[in-house]
Amino acid sequence: MEQQNDVIARYALIDREKNLSARAEGIAVGLTVGSWTDLPRATQERVEPFRGRIEEIRTLDVIDENRVRAEIAIRYPMINLTDQIAALLTTVFGKLSMDGEIRLVDLTLPSAYQAKFQGAKFGVRGLRERLSVYDRPLVMSIFKTCVGQTLDELAFHFREQAQGGVDLIKDDEIFFHEAVPPQVRVKRYREEGLRLEQETGRRPRYAVNLTGPVFQLKERAKRLQEVGADLFLFNVFAYGLDVLRELTSDSDIQVPFMAHPALAGAFYASAHHGIAAHVLLGDLLRLAGADIAIFPSPFGSVRLAREESALLTERLRAPGPFAPLMPAPSAGIHPGMVPLLVAEYGEDVIVNAGGGIHGHPRGAAAGGKAIYQALDAVRSGVPLNVAAETHVELYEALAKWGEARV
Amino acid sequence: MEQQNDVIARYALIDREKNLSARAEGIAVGLTVGSWTDLPRATQERVEPFRGRIEEIRTLDVIDENRVRAEIAIRYPMINLTDQIAALLTTVFGKLSMDGEIRLVDLTLPSAYQAKFQGAKFGVRGLRERLSVYDRPLVMSIFKTCVGQTLDELAFHFREQAQGGVDLIKDDEIFFHEAVPPQVRVKRYREEGLRLEQETGRRPRYAVNLTGPVFQLKERAKRLQEVGADLFLFNVFAYGLDVLRELTSDSDIQVPFMAHPALAGAFYASAHHGIAAHVLLGDLLRLAGADIAIFPSPFGSVRLAREESALLTERLRAPGPFAPLMPAPSAGIHPGMVPLLVAEYGEDVIVNAGGGIHGHPRGAAAGGKAIYQALDAVRSGVPLNVAAETHVELYEALAKWGEARV
Repeated sequence: MEQQNDVIARYALIDREKNLSARAEGIAVGLTVGSWTDLPRATQERVEPFRGRIEEIRTLDVIDENRVRAEIAIRYPMINLTDQIAALLTTVFGKLSMDGEIRLVDLTLPSAYQAKFQGAKFGVRGLRERLSVYDRPLVMSIFKTCVGQTLDELAFHFREQAQGGVDLIKDDEIFFHEAVPPQVRVKRYREEGLRLEQETGRRPRYAVNLTGPVFQLKERAKRLQEVGADLFLFNVFAYGLDVLRELTSDSDIQVPFMAHPALAGAFYASAHHGIAAHVLLGDLLRLAGADIAIFPSPFGSVRLAREESALLTERLRAPGPFAPLMPAPSAGIHPGMVPLLVAEYGEDVIVNAGGGIHGHPRGAAAGGKAIYQALDAVRSGVPLNVAAETHVELYEALAKWGEARV
Repeated sequence: MEQQNDVIARYALIDREKNLSARAEGIAVGLTVGSWTDLPRATQERVEPFRGRIEEIRTLDVIDENRVRAEIAIRYPMINLTDQIAALLTTVFGKLSMDGEIRLVDLTLPSAYQAKFQGAKFGVRGLRERLSVYDRPLVMSIFKTCVGQTLDELAFHFREQAQGGVDLIKDDEIFFHEAVPPQVRVKRYREEGLRLEQETGRRPRYAVNLTGPVFQLKERAKRLQEVGADLFLFNVFAYGLDVLRELTSDSDIQVPFMAHPALAGAFYASAHHGIAAHVLLGDLLRLAGADIAIFPSPFGSVRLAREESALLTERLRAPGPFAPLMPAPSAGIHPGMVPLLVAEYGEDVIVNAGGGIHGHPRGAAAGGKAIYQALDAVRSGVPLNVAAETHVELYEALAKWGEARV
């Protein structure tokens, strides 16, 4: 029964095989009750419930006579933790992150610990309800030029993207400069969106970059919500996972959060150090309450390995107490990539394009249309090159970017 | 003149040599004004001050016919940034952190940008004034057993460590459990410290782990300050650099901050990805306003490369607008390591020992004494083994751990 209240962390590491067992014991004890002090027996008994345990030690393969690749899994009693992600990470990968070639590759949280978190307030379903789009992938466009533009220029770019029918338009994550403040953008884009809605029946939603001093973020979020913010874009790894968690769990903030992976590569990109992408962008973003997870797709310019992307997507959707998140595989996405994306992620996915919309030979509106034409083709089982014969936007997109194949 | 207001970020990367120039241009433009849209000329002119520039492209060596190791330095106009570390990091290493084998190895901030930050409120000098210790390294001891202990047991351990005369006693960074709440520990240890002061004339200061929900940390810090907190220990990389920055820049919080490097290895440990330790634990901690930087020494159990530690220490002390920080090279420190530490870091250093104090054959008090005996020996130019002839605590420490040599 007690073990059901353990957090289990799994590490991939490189070490001498004969060291593994002492190393695992050192982690289990050292990162819970402390390893150096000889405690009196009575104290030992009382401290027992706080003590970590080895769950598994497994040698994967031999590198040379001195080193093996191995996995160690450790149980940490959740009684040691508070319900901050900072407490969880400091315990399972604080000191340990600095201790040689070791990587956090899995994190299993007991349901009693998960119960301290709320998860996504919207997730896939809530997001679809907000957008009234239930039967197809969502399409998102990215502002590619932000700084130095006037409000009118920005609004022009908004309209340009919106005219292709995209569901969502997001700020560039590097947009911090506030000559045109976020609340002014939210208001103006909302007006643009409402105007478009009168013509087309559909209003594109805008994800505004939530920025500013960390202790003012709640107030800023609420102010932006008041003027009509549809979604927040948030640089969660630059600000901190607990910051996102507290924003998303505030009941006065009823706006979905889109987590941007900026800085995430500093954690996950090495094979032998750091935190695996599916833990960082999957398990931890879920705990932090993100509704949308942006991450590099396996197909574009900046890539996640295909296996890693599959694992990550599995984590974003894993059953449990939290609502599933919407994946937004990104970077170098263009209309010719749509069949691949749908095959890989299914319908619950955001097709998120920057250059693949703006760079269309006929402009951003044509780029958005080309993506919808590709989505329609996939749904009807029509090959893209056939659909392109009767859809000029798709035709020109394929002529420029081709159809992506694995 | 304008260039004086640029942030310069330097990256170590692996790529094809013929790609380097286009890649540098892609970074400089893509991470500032956006790369995909063809702007009208009038807009281009207005956007000009926001555009990044290539500062340097340097090939270091050839790996094979397809790849070289290179460095690229990019200038980012500070006008693009707000004064949050999140804005700085998202810009210079947000997306880029995910783009192949690339590592942020240097960050030069213009003085106009530094002026937006306060730096350490105490630093080396302020810390020495608080402790009234001016002429020797400081000595710090680490609680090695925290969770599951009663207040009386904890107080017993406090006294035990304190009796060796240590200047500082810090919580274990994994101490989150609050059966004995932080404010209770602060009060009790303070009483213990004052009692000891009456006997010995010196009061050991206690660094309490500042934990809890992120938006409550300021209030918690103030409450702990009210009951007499001497210092805060803070898991800055688990909580976020801007969180520390806002805590340290609050004028109502007049307590030094000790930054713990928990999780930092996830950023710096890989050779080809992430953020170099001297940037992360040096430049960024300075910007965040830490007074003490804990990091792995090059000599102990968990190590930083010696060169990297030297670079880091240089950054902690670099001249400029911010007060120098106190380095606390840690992990596996024991009395026999004192000559090495003083030779490497000089007098402005914290000798920070856990097992090297608690594990002394005669107990923690003897461990602390052995460190002071070693410090006295170094100052008098007496070899440790000679000093040990007349100092039994040092003698036994050397018998157990030996004298460390590079």
